[in-house]
Amino acid sequence: MTTFGESHGAAMGAVVDGCPAGLYLNEEDINQELRRRRPGYSAYTSPRKEEDEVKILSGVFEGRTTGAPLMLLIENRDKDSFSYQSIRGIYRPGHANFTYLMKYGLMDERGGGRASARETVARVAAGAVAKKFLQEQGILCCAFLSQVGEIFFQEQKGVTVEMLQKKIYASAVFCPDEEASQRMMQEIEKAKIEGDSIGACVTCIAQVPAGLGDPVYDKLSARLGFAMLSIPAAKGFEMGRGFQSAGMRGSCYNDGFILNDQGQVSTKTNHAGGVLGGISTGMPLTIRVAFKPASGIRLEQESVNDKKEKVKLRMAPSGRHDPCVAIRAVPVVEAMMALTLADAVLLQRCATLKYPS
Amino acid sequence: MTTFGESHGAAMGAVVDGCPAGLYLNEEDINQELRRRRPGYSAYTSPRKEEDEVKILSGVFEGRTTGAPLMLLIENRDKDSFSYQSIRGIYRPGHANFTYLMKYGLMDERGGGRASARETVARVAAGAVAKKFLQEQGILCCAFLSQVGEIFFQEQKGVTVEMLQKKIYASAVFCPDEEASQRMMQEIEKAKIEGDSIGACVTCIAQVPAGLGDPVYDKLSARLGFAMLSIPAAKGFEMGRGFQSAGMRGSCYNDGFILNDQGQVSTKTNHAGGVLGGISTGMPLTIRVAFKPASGIRLEQESVNDKKEKVKLRMAPSGRHDPCVAIRAVPVVEAMMALTLADAVLLQRCATLKYPS
Amino acid sequence: MTTFGESHGAAMGAVVDGCPAGLYLNEEDINQELRRRRPGYSAYTSPRKEEDEVKILSGVFEGRTTGAPLMLLIENRDKDSFSYQSIRGIYRPGHANFTYLMKYGLMDERGGGRASARETVARVAAGAVAKKFLQEQGILCCAFLSQVGEIFFQEQKGVTVEMLQKKIYASAVFCPDEEASQRMMQEIEKAKIEGDSIGACVTCIAQVPAGLGDPVYDKLSARLGFAMLSIPAAKGFEMGRGFQSAGMRGSCYNDGFILNDQGQVSTKTNHAGGVLGGISTGMPLTIRVAFKPASGIRLEQESVNDKKEKVKLRMAPSGRHDPCVAIRAVPVVEAMMALTLADAVLLQRCATLKYPS
Amino acid sequence: MTTFGESHGAAMGAVVDGCPAGLYLNEEDINQELRRRRPGYSAYTSPRKEEDEVKILSGVFEGRTTGAPLMLLIENRDKDSFSYQSIRGIYRPGHANFTYLMKYGLMDERGGGRASARETVARVAAGAVAKKFLQEQGILCCAFLSQVGEIFFQEQKGVTVEMLQKKIYASAVFCPDEEASQRMMQEIEKAKIEGDSIGACVTCIAQVPAGLGDPVYDKLSARLGFAMLSIPAAKGFEMGRGFQSAGMRGSCYNDGFILNDQGQVSTKTNHAGGVLGGISTGMPLTIRVAFKPASGIRLEQESVNDKKEKVKLRMAPSGRHDPCVAIRAVPVVEAMMALTLADAVLLQRCATLKYPS
Repeated sequence: MTTFGESHGAAMGAVVDGCPAGLYLNEEDINQELRRRRPGYSAYTSPRKEEDEVKILSGVFEGRTTGAPLMLLIENRDKDSFSYQSIRGIYRPGHANFTYLMKYGLMDERGGGRASARETVARVAAGAVAKKFLQEQGILCCAFLSQVGEIFFQEQKGVTVEMLQKKIYASAVFCPDEEASQRMMQEIEKAKIEGDSIGACVTCIAQVPAGLGDPVYDKLSARLGFAMLSIPAAKGFEMGRGFQSAGMRGSCYNDGFILNDQGQVSTKTNHAGGVLGGISTGMPLTIRVAFKPASGIRLEQESVNDKKEKVKLRMAPSGRHDPCVAIRAVPVVEAMMALTLADAVLLQRCATLKYPS
Repeated sequence: MTTFGESHGAAMGAVVDGCPAGLYLNEEDINQELRRRRPGYSAYTSPRKEEDEVKILSGVFEGRTTGAPLMLLIENRDKDSFSYQSIRGIYRPGHANFTYLMKYGLMDERGGGRASARETVARVAAGAVAKKFLQEQGILCCAFLSQVGEIFFQEQKGVTVEMLQKKIYASAVFCPDEEASQRMMQEIEKAKIEGDSIGACVTCIAQVPAGLGDPVYDKLSARLGFAMLSIPAAKGFEMGRGFQSAGMRGSCYNDGFILNDQGQVSTKTNHAGGVLGGISTGMPLTIRVAFKPASGIRLEQESVNDKKEKVKLRMAPSGRHDPCVAIRAVPVVEAMMALTLADAVLLQRCATLKYPS
Repeated sequence: MTTFGESHGAAMGAVVDGCPAGLYLNEEDINQELRRRRPGYSAYTSPRKEEDEVKILSGVFEGRTTGAPLMLLIENRDKDSFSYQSIRGIYRPGHANFTYLMKYGLMDERGGGRASARETVARVAAGAVAKKFLQEQGILCCAFLSQVGEIFFQEQKGVTVEMLQKKIYASAVFCPDEEASQRMMQEIEKAKIEGDSIGACVTCIAQVPAGLGDPVYDKLSARLGFAMLSIPAAKGFEMGRGFQSAGMRGSCYNDGFILNDQGQVSTKTNHAGGVLGGISTGMPLTIRVAFKPASGIRLEQESVNDKKEKVKLRMAPSGRHDPCVAIRAVPVVEAMMALTLADAVLLQRCATLKYPS
Repeated sequence: MTTFGESHGAAMGAVVDGCPAGLYLNEEDINQELRRRRPGYSAYTSPRKEEDEVKILSGVFEGRTTGAPLMLLIENRDKDSFSYQSIRGIYRPGHANFTYLMKYGLMDERGGGRASARETVARVAAGAVAKKFLQEQGILCCAFLSQVGEIFFQEQKGVTVEMLQKKIYASAVFCPDEEASQRMMQEIEKAKIEGDSIGACVTCIAQVPAGLGDPVYDKLSARLGFAMLSIPAAKGFEMGRGFQSAGMRGSCYNDGFILNDQGQVSTKTNHAGGVLGGISTGMPLTIRVAFKPASGIRLEQESVNDKKEKVKLRMAPSGRHDPCVAIRAVPVVEAMMALTLADAVLLQRCATLKYPS
């Protein structure tokens, strides 16, 4: 996958190369996912109207993929309404305009340029293709909000992806628990009123067969970490028990092998989060991604400008303030999971001499 | 970098391609780093004698790199003393032999095959080359043990990499604080006596210029996450405040820009861990990696074998039991940091039209 | 560079990643190159009206590249006028619809799908960006038609790229010699009248500094061969004396080093075509690419269809018959040369410890 | 595949990553191919004794590949007997020491460094693995000398790879025709006596299924061209009729589809050399590679040294003069063909939604 586009340019998009031929795919498959980026309650995310619609410009013939690159284009309809003129030349705290200047020698003042969360719409579109491909292989995944500030949600054992999906879609903040959703919304509302933003965690679970991933550099855990940490504002990644593992003993941590009710080899617990030695065990893949609070707050902050003068600034206009960007990150995490898994499924076809049966 | 070799095969090694010509490099530069993998107190790590010595088989002429691929070979001298016969066919809890079988259709019973921690010797060797290259650019990094079980060490603000390095080398467990080292050793000793293992965290800090990394997929944070999560037993990765960010407000999290004492643009705090929008800010890069407790414990565990029979096993022979593998991971984390940064430094040469001055 | 699009889809395009920041670039820079794909005399190429115009959808801000991916989009305006219904299911001789079916299990009957020469418009657009970048480095290249059927044109020694460029643009068949142009046009006209097509060769010359390219797998000659052989209908590639070398003696072939008039090390002859050991010598890079005659002829041919019946077919409709596709390949060869050289120039920045002065 | 090593360093080798698990492989499989690099009559190639023997240092367990990287090591036993001292600092005509200096800022005087033909031993070793894999898929290939100076050998139609292989192995110059072999040997002997070298062409034929290769950039023809042009001294590449195509008419060139005796779709002729639109047709893949005469001749040549003085030199010592390097290139061409095809076979597993049946 290659994406392109800036938040305030003409269009965003992705070129998906390597999608196998013969997959049924239409624009509605993708638009459906894009709509999920726009949760129902305007209070909890940015009120920008992004009625994103994808055009598939290549790679599909008579409703099926041809094996050629898929070009997915999404026009930017609601751009540039805010003038960034007032903060021109100011290094914005927590924002990438300073580091872009250091790297490229110039600043693109309009929105976040490539660093904008808007770039992720292309990932969701590409992820929709990957999800369709995975469905054909019987692989499902879902992401949800598992933490907002100090409010936590812990999924219960034995819950399947299908069960979670319904509940996630029903929640304005993509959290499968109604009570937790309510408390998260209150927390977000509070930050919003105060002109502040708040951090959050997204959890993603996938049901996959054993044997996916590579043993050394391209461990499934490393590929997933790479994919998730490329999402704007992601600051941490863990699999299974993750950082808790550092405080555990091996006798407790090791997931003992058992025979499950179907007589198949499985593990009693899943502290490893579905991966051993970089390869999937067949237990649910479980990852968690930490997102920092968005830099764009309405509160006044101190900074410096490109003339090395001290300045004060308000980074977010009142209208476009998004108190908890991680809500929008939920479908992005799901998309990146799907893209990573689709890759792993295709690579697995090359792991043995004969095709695996 | 490409590595190869299994823990119980004839040799390990790495081919390092893309090292610029003209770097002064000899075998001692690398052996010095390899020796660091063998901390002084046998009580705290595996007693295997691995007096690793590298041979540079190609890529160096008259003491300097030629631009050709470097072949670094390390022979395995102390292999195969333990017979794995007794656990043949048993799926080892927390170990990759089950997932290898699922992926490749066969099991390599001797040690962990490619999944063995032994593979990391090749990374340390390659990392030594990267560190030499980085030194020429004025870039330094160091890793240390920051958590063992419930024992934590938090580095103090304003401490430089040079100051840390001395203290780290003085500690048997690579922890720059004497008191914390003592408590960590006690914790490890306790686990060892009980035939158990214990998890840990490694922190790594690097002093780098602003402008390294890429804004979208190849974010410096994503590249570092990928590198670290490819280390055996790594289960979590975070930058700066990492998972704590999820509980923070933007007004507190955002690192305000200031002018430092040298009149340069800097930030007051470094919650972001030295990266904004995937590109380095010039503040110290700070990452933390969580390692699960090693699977190879002496305590008896329950499992299943390849005939689907329930079995009991002791995974570690009494002699080779390593209660805290994360100690050995410290130089590996440092090596992976160096390799990732060397890549980023070279790529940065291509970021602008003219070479950056 | 990633391209996408089919000849009969909605649009073609390229995503150019890795272009350094700070390059002055506008749509006219690219459109100018696209117009060169449409030579003046309709008699010698396909009469399709392709008034291609590029839109730069991302990667440029205030007239300069930002370092972000460039998205170049070209809409397909003159598509689908011919119904391919009549040849549905027939394996077309010399055409890729049979091999696509073998590979992907389906056929896209509309034009050539990805195999269409139309795909090359995206390469020319991307090449225009590379040419702008190379100009800044003082690197120039030009391609021309050097053979049509039995008519040859051999460039004279000592002619510079600038001198050739003017003459090439003046010729309807991109041949820098007026008399040869006339004879080539007659040859093409003859083939056209007979409903047949004709093969041709394209030569490309570039003035580059010494030191570009890699010594082993990524030899400059190998990269150029790869780039050129990916152009539709290319069947051969050679550097310098190429296949003639096989008939030569070393004493005659070896290009002796001399000091040129500026006192610089140069070679007396250039049989090697500007490359030794995969790296440029500083002498003009000289390559030649052979193109087979286009498969789409008006003459009746015998074939087989997907029901395994013998059939007869006329592959080209009278209106869209292109007797010598290699004319259109001239700017494509030039574009692929520019893209390959731009890559090599950027990679060369990483070859030594310090930036080369 | 990654190779490393210099002709006068300690060892050569290759790391082969991505070889599927389960392939039967032992060192003799590879040594057998390595021996083919040493043809019987010392008169026709360099008399260096290279009794190359490979060690498989990793990736094989109990006689089968494990899916882990294969490390193939070949020690250099007969190095450094010639002192290159006498030609130190001299730019050797037709040799890469000048271009290496331009690229890397230094010269490795011992032999050709990475540019030495010796590097190809690693390719032959890696190719042996690929050939074993291809055998399992029923894919065969063979290479032979088809031209030396003005002496040509043209294979006859309808000859299979098996038939050719026997005859090739029987010839001291890898030419399947006895009479042509004799005349080639005379031609080479003549050049040798005169202290000169001579160019040559190698042809390679492979029997492969339809559907291999990619339609756009990674055309099978482009991949093969890239692989072949990375061989030292290669100056030209063509598929099927190659450069002759430029002189042909479409009505003659197009390979008409027919049903063969087994009722399968095939083509009457094979001017395309087994590839249409970058994808294999199922007809024999046929390529030809042109090699320039070796630069290392005994005749005196004029050149310049690094002090910009005119000098005369004899590049080859009397003992080590190799008049026709292309003989040694025959197994290398075969190896590169096998490696490219093995890649294409694995990639084809990902081309469609379900595994191809």
